[in-house]
Amino acid sequence: MIDRYSRKIMTDIWSDQTKFSIWLDIEISAHEALEKNGLIESGLTDKIIEKTRNIQFDTTRILEIEKKTQHDVIAFLTFISETIGEKNARYLHQGMTSSDLLDTCLCIQLKRASKLIIDNLDNLLNELSIKAHEHKYLPTIGRSHGIHAEPTTIGLKFAQAYAEFSRAKDRMMSAEKEISVCAISGAVGTFANIDPSVENYVAKKLGLSSETISTQVIPRDRFAYFFSILGIIAGSIERLSTEIRHLQRTEVDEMSEQFQKGQKGSSAMPHKRNPVLTENLTGISRLIRSSVIPSLENIALWHERDISHSSVERVIAPDTTTLIDFALARLTNVIKNIGVNKKNIEENLNKLNGLIYSQRILLLLTQKGLSREASYDLVQRNAGISWEKQTDFQKIIESDPEISKLLTNEEISDIFSLEYHLKNVDYIFDKVFAI
Amino acid sequence: MIDRYSRKIMTDIWSDQTKFSIWLDIEISAHEALEKNGLIESGLTDKIIEKTRNIQFDTTRILEIEKKTQHDVIAFLTFISETIGEKNARYLHQGMTSSDLLDTCLCIQLKRASKLIIDNLDNLLNELSIKAHEHKYLPTIGRSHGIHAEPTTIGLKFAQAYAEFSRAKDRMMSAEKEISVCAISGAVGTFANIDPSVENYVAKKLGLSSETISTQVIPRDRFAYFFSILGIIAGSIERLSTEIRHLQRTEVDEMSEQFQKGQKGSSAMPHKRNPVLTENLTGISRLIRSSVIPSLENIALWHERDISHSSVERVIAPDTTTLIDFALARLTNVIKNIGVNKKNIEENLNKLNGLIYSQRILLLLTQKGLSREASYDLVQRNAGISWEKQTDFQKIIESDPEISKLLTNEEISDIFSLEYHLKNVDYIFDKVFAI
Amino acid sequence: MIDRYSRKIMTDIWSDQTKFSIWLDIEISAHEALEKNGLIESGLTDKIIEKTRNIQFDTTRILEIEKKTQHDVIAFLTFISETIGEKNARYLHQGMTSSDLLDTCLCIQLKRASKLIIDNLDNLLNELSIKAHEHKYLPTIGRSHGIHAEPTTIGLKFAQAYAEFSRAKDRMMSAEKEISVCAISGAVGTFANIDPSVENYVAKKLGLSSETISTQVIPRDRFAYFFSILGIIAGSIERLSTEIRHLQRTEVDEMSEQFQKGQKGSSAMPHKRNPVLTENLTGISRLIRSSVIPSLENIALWHERDISHSSVERVIAPDTTTLIDFALARLTNVIKNIGVNKKNIEENLNKLNGLIYSQRILLLLTQKGLSREASYDLVQRNAGISWEKQTDFQKIIESDPEISKLLTNEEISDIFSLEYHLKNVDYIFDKVFAI
Amino acid sequence: MIDRYSRKIMTDIWSDQTKFSIWLDIEISAHEALEKNGLIESGLTDKIIEKTRNIQFDTTRILEIEKKTQHDVIAFLTFISETIGEKNARYLHQGMTSSDLLDTCLCIQLKRASKLIIDNLDNLLNELSIKAHEHKYLPTIGRSHGIHAEPTTIGLKFAQAYAEFSRAKDRMMSAEKEISVCAISGAVGTFANIDPSVENYVAKKLGLSSETISTQVIPRDRFAYFFSILGIIAGSIERLSTEIRHLQRTEVDEMSEQFQKGQKGSSAMPHKRNPVLTENLTGISRLIRSSVIPSLENIALWHERDISHSSVERVIAPDTTTLIDFALARLTNVIKNIGVNKKNIEENLNKLNGLIYSQRILLLLTQKGLSREASYDLVQRNAGISWEKQTDFQKIIESDPEISKLLTNEEISDIFSLEYHLKNVDYIFDKVFAI
Repeated sequence: MIDRYSRKIMTDIWSDQTKFSIWLDIEISAHEALEKNGLIESGLTDKIIEKTRNIQFDTTRILEIEKKTQHDVIAFLTFISETIGEKNARYLHQGMTSSDLLDTCLCIQLKRASKLIIDNLDNLLNELSIKAHEHKYLPTIGRSHGIHAEPTTIGLKFAQAYAEFSRAKDRMMSAEKEISVCAISGAVGTFANIDPSVENYVAKKLGLSSETISTQVIPRDRFAYFFSILGIIAGSIERLSTEIRHLQRTEVDEMSEQFQKGQKGSSAMPHKRNPVLTENLTGISRLIRSSVIPSLENIALWHERDISHSSVERVIAPDTTTLIDFALARLTNVIKNIGVNKKNIEENLNKLNGLIYSQRILLLLTQKGLSREASYDLVQRNAGISWEKQTDFQKIIESDPEISKLLTNEEISDIFSLEYHLKNVDYIFDKVFAI
Repeated sequence: MIDRYSRKIMTDIWSDQTKFSIWLDIEISAHEALEKNGLIESGLTDKIIEKTRNIQFDTTRILEIEKKTQHDVIAFLTFISETIGEKNARYLHQGMTSSDLLDTCLCIQLKRASKLIIDNLDNLLNELSIKAHEHKYLPTIGRSHGIHAEPTTIGLKFAQAYAEFSRAKDRMMSAEKEISVCAISGAVGTFANIDPSVENYVAKKLGLSSETISTQVIPRDRFAYFFSILGIIAGSIERLSTEIRHLQRTEVDEMSEQFQKGQKGSSAMPHKRNPVLTENLTGISRLIRSSVIPSLENIALWHERDISHSSVERVIAPDTTTLIDFALARLTNVIKNIGVNKKNIEENLNKLNGLIYSQRILLLLTQKGLSREASYDLVQRNAGISWEKQTDFQKIIESDPEISKLLTNEEISDIFSLEYHLKNVDYIFDKVFAI
Repeated sequence: MIDRYSRKIMTDIWSDQTKFSIWLDIEISAHEALEKNGLIESGLTDKIIEKTRNIQFDTTRILEIEKKTQHDVIAFLTFISETIGEKNARYLHQGMTSSDLLDTCLCIQLKRASKLIIDNLDNLLNELSIKAHEHKYLPTIGRSHGIHAEPTTIGLKFAQAYAEFSRAKDRMMSAEKEISVCAISGAVGTFANIDPSVENYVAKKLGLSSETISTQVIPRDRFAYFFSILGIIAGSIERLSTEIRHLQRTEVDEMSEQFQKGQKGSSAMPHKRNPVLTENLTGISRLIRSSVIPSLENIALWHERDISHSSVERVIAPDTTTLIDFALARLTNVIKNIGVNKKNIEENLNKLNGLIYSQRILLLLTQKGLSREASYDLVQRNAGISWEKQTDFQKIIESDPEISKLLTNEEISDIFSLEYHLKNVDYIFDKVFAI
Repeated sequence: MIDRYSRKIMTDIWSDQTKFSIWLDIEISAHEALEKNGLIESGLTDKIIEKTRNIQFDTTRILEIEKKTQHDVIAFLTFISETIGEKNARYLHQGMTSSDLLDTCLCIQLKRASKLIIDNLDNLLNELSIKAHEHKYLPTIGRSHGIHAEPTTIGLKFAQAYAEFSRAKDRMMSAEKEISVCAISGAVGTFANIDPSVENYVAKKLGLSSETISTQVIPRDRFAYFFSILGIIAGSIERLSTEIRHLQRTEVDEMSEQFQKGQKGSSAMPHKRNPVLTENLTGISRLIRSSVIPSLENIALWHERDISHSSVERVIAPDTTTLIDFALARLTNVIKNIGVNKKNIEENLNKLNGLIYSQRILLLLTQKGLSREASYDLVQRNAGISWEKQTDFQKIIESDPEISKLLTNEEISDIFSLEYHLKNVDYIFDKVFAI
């Protein structure tokens, strides 16, 4: 992934150094298991550990060997052999196949990436909770279809996002679990040349489970699940970003991304302050989603495996985790520094001159015995007048003779009240933020 | 979905009659809750139940009303009102918004669909288990990259599919749970005109959970999760189908789909018996996957909701569940009736004249003290000769002087053995089929 | 596709009757070619034409035969044979393979669908042109990032859409050409049992080109191109729909979809008038796009063909063409009946108190010799004051001593002018609507 | 894109140095146009050209400025200003907006990338043509559904690919044309502060067309077309790769990727020679396709533009063009060095003991007056016997009394002939390779 959308904490997981270091861990763990099984002379594992303690993986040299062998794992093993001596290295990779190394390593990397992503989600949830509680009772207009509907609160908007990202966290934890597996089962997964106890030993040592059944490779439905979850979280990132973009548009102007000192919104128009961060996150969500289909296409490998999944994963594993890490960190910052423009929020709430209370009139009329259909027509007709003339809906209602027959002015006045709409905010917050 | 890929048991869930019937259930349950809260005269709910006991939903009439109102829920309510009388109907839908009805209904339909899909998975798992145990020890060549690798068993192939579809079932159950929610929270989810107790009452009555926080609609990340899971299962369907297609190709001919009496494989070539069912399933998998991205795009609705998700779901909810139901049922039948051609399986296993045992020679040479690199070169060179001349690999190995120095003929002979490769079949089966 | 999103004019193309009728046309044309080649007794084709003149395709009977043969083309041929007599039918399908029939028929259906889609595009272009010219000089605020930028005109908005849908039409015509091919080349495309002259004859008769080289099937990259083009057009439909949705949102309220007499915007809130048509089109665009990936996955068939593409196309060919036909017709109607609220357009244009002219001040300052950076900072600072205090930007600029040193009040006053921004509208219109 | 899948010739197009260099070209060209219009003192453009002749773009410094301004174009302009002096730089970017620069640059980069891709396609077409002609008459079995169908030739397989990639080239040229546009039209595309003649001047100078109508940005349907075309080409790459993978699988073994000296197919199994290049290309095709949907989602920008497309394009523009360049080059090499195993090709052709001639018997029987249905049943029955017993089909046919009544042994013998199937190879080649 390009630097612009990368954080070092994530890209480090995907560096060559990290990869080789994990490979070495796996090889040594497997070696240790063999030694414990008495298949290797006692003490050899310790010797290898000793000799590789401060190892620097010379990527130039490794690539050089790969160019000849056309095989990255053999290149790595040859390099290790060169480093610690052929004799010491001779039982490394014993009975294993490259995929044992590659897949288990990928799982470890994805697991580490998961931890970061979950940390990000925790940070985001924390900021969302703060904003939700800060603006718990701040009334604002709820909009369906982009049209003013009925009042809600700014706090509820953040609470909704909190609930959605809580689900995201649950899903991420299940995705982490799905890919926290280890396979050391040999060329077609039969443990022909390596005892199952090795797999179990390595799995336990590296914090993984043993794959139930592998066929040289770990089945790719696990990884498809992982990337699908990232795609769903991207959808949630886009949703919250879209909300902010809407709320910052000039005519609405209820919230705004922080505008930094020195920042320039446009090279041409000095007055501009654009919601560029959330627009950027909208685009990044598209990118994250785009790895879902290739990951699904990767499932149907041929027979015990083909290697078509490999090029896909070499790209989407680092790229997509890097993007979502960046996106969540950016979104957290946006929420933390979000500007909330109470004045405009209130103005917009009153923009439709009371029309937003139309439902309660409808309901009250039906309660007075009018049919639902007749009530609807009556309220809709008056609403049309208020909308067109931009005049106070309450007054129009009060002056409608058909309505006056059924409702007193007191009853009507009682309808045009914010409190009525916010009475269950506490109830909802209790559900959302329940421990 | 076209009839060709539909089973009535699933399309019934998505019929208009079913939809209206669920709508009525929800409305009546909500009405009942209101009555229990003392907001409606006692006995009115029973009266509605009585009057709708044998209701026929006249879709022509309902569509006629919709044409005028441009609103499907209002059309339905008007029809009910016509049926049971305006007076009896006047508290129906009280304080609810259309989405309360539509979303809760969609969840009930998806939940019913989930049950069917899970039943299908159970049937498929059952057939896979039977085939796995039937052919548990039947040796066959394992292939990586389409190239013969090392022996495995036909049973392990089915066991692998069993493990994969077990994960599919777990995922499906989590998808069912994700969408088993009920929302009756009003126009922007604030419970302004309807008490939260109604939602809880209806949820309990209909076997759902109450949505944590809704905003007129149930958040769409839940449905995205649902369709993503279907997409992953489609990947697994494609994998197993691809395996069978490969095994049926003329040169391999190890398995074959049942060919029915009277069936014609080709309009032109009377000799043809084609794996058309699994090819068909491969295409259907593409279709099922194609609903994943729209479902992800549906998440980012505007503000408290826009209705863009609706057209997507009106199509993909019935179509995708219908397709996966059909696909799983078809796949189950394919597995049940699969032909297993033992003669060809054995012939293919011997096709490479023993080359498939090359790894063990490599390992034994390293155990004798040769370096991994030297061993590899030695075996690779001899393998090349056997491959090109299509001659017995064991003999070539035995006659290599460098190898003879290190390995006795007895040791070599011991290498060319199937038992060695199958010794852990029991271990793997125990893991896969563990209760 | 569900009725709700279908127009009969398109679904008729995809009916069984139409399909069988095209099949018969192809078979008869091929028969005629054989007869002209002297391979069939003279007059037999005319006899078949005579006997099938008023043929009714009995789908129940055909399906019944298919159930036995498991082959739809054989079922059709058997039905024809039953209808016209075995003796008359015996040279039908001679040397052909099912795909010759199926693929050529699919191309004819897609070609007919293309014609409808192009008609739709013509209608849409016509309405866009009318609206563009009607509102050619109606000034409105241009928005980047949802933030007011500089003035443009309503006419230019429609002109932009006109240019985009003109490209859509060009692309659609190229898509039509791509799939207007005929293949009658036998079981593996070698013309083994059928002379190439038959293909050429049928192609010419049915208004198609002969496929360059087929392999039982027409190569699927052609169809992938077709569905990709539909996906791109869907993107343009979504763009125009999104524009309207934005312009109708309560705070903007510059345009609105027609609200029909009797229509109800919400079951709960009688005041609502929602842009439901364009929201609906946004969702439908997602559906149309979702056929792109399966159509791309269809390209890589195995060897001379496998049948995995078939199930995909049986669904996406009718569904996606039906959806885009419906969507374009709906969008055309939306544009035709769009409400343009000039009052709000003007109000919004003035909402930022003149800030939208900030660029010209910047430019003038640089022309007076100030550096770009200093000019930018100067204007940005004053813009910030105007934004926050919501006061007239011109006055603030006039009272800035640094600016006063460089610009006269006359020069400043001259900047705050709409005409300046609209002077090239004619130029752009000439380009867009050039014949 | 990772180095592993990148060629320098393509990544150079996407380097920062190239980008800045193109930006400078555009700015200078626009400056020159302004000077020619008499808006700038004569000679200033030459001075800038002089001062930037050997400019090194100090990316560290530019990023440093961007960090403060949060705007990449302003950072660039500031850097230029620092380099050539504020006074000389003051008319640069005059009346332009960042997108004028960014979009026109992107188009130039995509145009250069197109040229490379077209070169690649030419190289591939060349190799395909060589192989097609080399093996023009080499008979091989054609397979539908993976099952032997009827004979074709190896040459026809390559000819088919040639025809498909010829279409790919045509499409690529149309994609190049679609994105070869220039937009210099200001903040909302109205040419408010910059005369249209500047756009036309720059376009002509840089080999582009002027955009018909832009809205700060070039409309994104153009780029969606571009990436869709890459997606379709990826499908064709996958198809040819899949063909080779199939032909290399052990049981078929008709073609093979070149195996380099020193190459190792497996870290565990020294005998392995895997089609890893084409498997790799299969995965890369998935990656290329994955940029199609984001590019389609990019079309529906808000109003005159939002910046959500930008992050998508910053990634997919370099990544996807780099991948397809790499893939086409790799595929060309695979074809160039492909091994063709004539012995196995012949063996496989005879594998079904003559069953592959079944259609001709069917046809001949119908010509003898038997009905199509009866003929089919007769041949199918005998084919079943031959298949099961693996005995010579001709002999079985000859000994069937019902057939003997209708066909002489000479007629039967005549049927089992390769020449019959290959008689139109010349005709097809003439069509495919016609100039």
